[in-house]
Amino acid sequence: MLWMKLRLGEIGERGIISELTPLFSKPEHVLLGIGDDAAVLKLGENMVVATTDMIQSDTHIPPQMTPHQIGKLVVTVNYSDLAAMGAKPLGILVSMGLPPDMLEEDLISLAKGIEEMATRYGGCMLGGDTKNSPRLTLAGAALGVPYNKQVFTRGGASPGDLVGVTGQLGLGAAGLETLLRGLDPKRFGSAVKAALEPEPRLLEAELLASTGAVTAANDVSDGLAWELYEISAASGVGIEIWEEKLPIPSVVSEVAGELDIDPLELALHRGWDYELLVTLKPGKTELVQQLLEERGYKLSLIGHVTEGDVIIIHTKKDGGGEETGVLEPRGYEHLTSTSRASRLGAWKNRD
Amino acid sequence: MLWMKLRLGEIGERGIISELTPLFSKPEHVLLGIGDDAAVLKLGENMVVATTDMIQSDTHIPPQMTPHQIGKLVVTVNYSDLAAMGAKPLGILVSMGLPPDMLEEDLISLAKGIEEMATRYGGCMLGGDTKNSPRLTLAGAALGVPYNKQVFTRGGASPGDLVGVTGQLGLGAAGLETLLRGLDPKRFGSAVKAALEPEPRLLEAELLASTGAVTAANDVSDGLAWELYEISAASGVGIEIWEEKLPIPSVVSEVAGELDIDPLELALHRGWDYELLVTLKPGKTELVQQLLEERGYKLSLIGHVTEGDVIIIHTKKDGGGEETGVLEPRGYEHLTSTSRASRLGAWKNRD
Repeated sequence: MLWMKLRLGEIGERGIISELTPLFSKPEHVLLGIGDDAAVLKLGENMVVATTDMIQSDTHIPPQMTPHQIGKLVVTVNYSDLAAMGAKPLGILVSMGLPPDMLEEDLISLAKGIEEMATRYGGCMLGGDTKNSPRLTLAGAALGVPYNKQVFTRGGASPGDLVGVTGQLGLGAAGLETLLRGLDPKRFGSAVKAALEPEPRLLEAELLASTGAVTAANDVSDGLAWELYEISAASGVGIEIWEEKLPIPSVVSEVAGELDIDPLELALHRGWDYELLVTLKPGKTELVQQLLEERGYKLSLIGHVTEGDVIIIHTKKDGGGEETGVLEPRGYEHLTSTSRASRLGAWKNRD
Repeated sequence: MLWMKLRLGEIGERGIISELTPLFSKPEHVLLGIGDDAAVLKLGENMVVATTDMIQSDTHIPPQMTPHQIGKLVVTVNYSDLAAMGAKPLGILVSMGLPPDMLEEDLISLAKGIEEMATRYGGCMLGGDTKNSPRLTLAGAALGVPYNKQVFTRGGASPGDLVGVTGQLGLGAAGLETLLRGLDPKRFGSAVKAALEPEPRLLEAELLASTGAVTAANDVSDGLAWELYEISAASGVGIEIWEEKLPIPSVVSEVAGELDIDPLELALHRGWDYELLVTLKPGKTELVQQLLEERGYKLSLIGHVTEGDVIIIHTKKDGGGEETGVLEPRGYEHLTSTSRASRLGAWKNRD
């Protein structure tokens, strides 16, 4: 029998993570290595949070996105990881692979987009590198410091903690579907805006950090279900959520209706929302919600942390009554047809 | 008359640099922004040095390179920028664009190469991101701290300083030519090894930093001529060098002879050497050379800093006697046929 050599497309992201993770060591100056939204380094009395994320045309950038929006996006995807760590941006480095036939004016717009988002939350564009590349490729690396002494991790949730999510779910995915499947963008404008101009939730992260109530956090870029399972795995807990508590705006249901898909698919498994998912100490949730609402933000409590290792979702049955099931640990890569379980993706898992 | 829209391939790197540089702002916590081999941030009492560099198959990776060597290369190109700043690595982040048909065993070799080079000088692999990509794309972002309180910059050279370079010149370029133009790799083994396994000059950087004698520094990745002009421009000085003092090993002349090109072309304009180019306070050079030699390293003094803004090179004429000319400000991008002046490349210029 031949020993078959495996190719990455056959192994998928989880296989890649589990193969690579044990190969890397963690010296003492690294407080948190591969294993969260970002690494955390100790530097004298200070902590530095560092993360990297890459986007490429065709696979990660909707064709309708303007160069200015693309520039903002490479910052957002990296700053969103800082937000998930409760960290304030110091700045971002961007390596750019640029097609020689790209218009000069488009590169300038792209750079202005980087500058706009890089500076919006106190950071800046730190530097970069440009190379020839047939596909537009933008690799960002963001640095930050904790808003409030400690970082958020995925591993601190305990049974009894409440589960909260900022903003709305499914909006970015509904916007992407509108753009990619030819629906009328004017009809679903709020969703399209969320898809083309996602915002890192740094102001929310700062407020959340100030409360000291956060026990674990993640950003929802890969879909709520996937992110819940990441917290579950890192914290060694289960989670129970209720469909009726999920902040799914009506436009998500409308887009789903047009496409004849379940709105929950958009809200739970598609991501592109860049909201923050947090677990909170149970005694402090009212205070936290009030603080965010005072500043014009929303935090929806969608469930609680349990013993165990699965995510349970309670949904309403059509005829009334409740149905209880295990939430599928399934995410989605935008602009490709592969599901998360069989794709390459972010691998950041080791303590 | 039509207003012609320019494309990046027509503008070249210098055009891109001068277009983009004014678009980015520098907040107070950034000591050195776009404008050197790396950015320098202030963090409490500490400085953090941060840089990014990307490599892609076809354009930046010789086809003969093994996955393990490719893994080391993405670290080397980033750590070499830290060396040029006199900074010790804390670690590196790597965003990976991976072809789905890449073999699993090749990815593991590549990761082991990253780990080997990332940890060799006290740093580590901090984390990463994997994405589907038709071309292998590796974007690194390295973090470091000064070996000796202050960083090296390009802008500190003064007339009277001496100019030194570590190791040998032209070796990496000769190795690349051997590989890419079908010469016998066994015959030019030392050059091929230099091309396939370049080493960041961090140990030399540490020794140089300890002397306090360095006034400006650069790495020679893009060719000595180019790097001299970068120091010249940043410091507002001229430089004078002597061909006979350049540390060009005989294998470089042999490869050049086989290809019927001038060995000076390989030594001055091709790069891929990853040596350190420094300017030194004139009174301290003997001490510095002795310190490096004691540890088995070499520092060749090749010229001195002058008033003005051009680089003068003194060469030997065939019939004896000396010829004096202006060194062309010309570099080279490996694995493409374009010269530096008309290509995209590293742009890191603003204070």
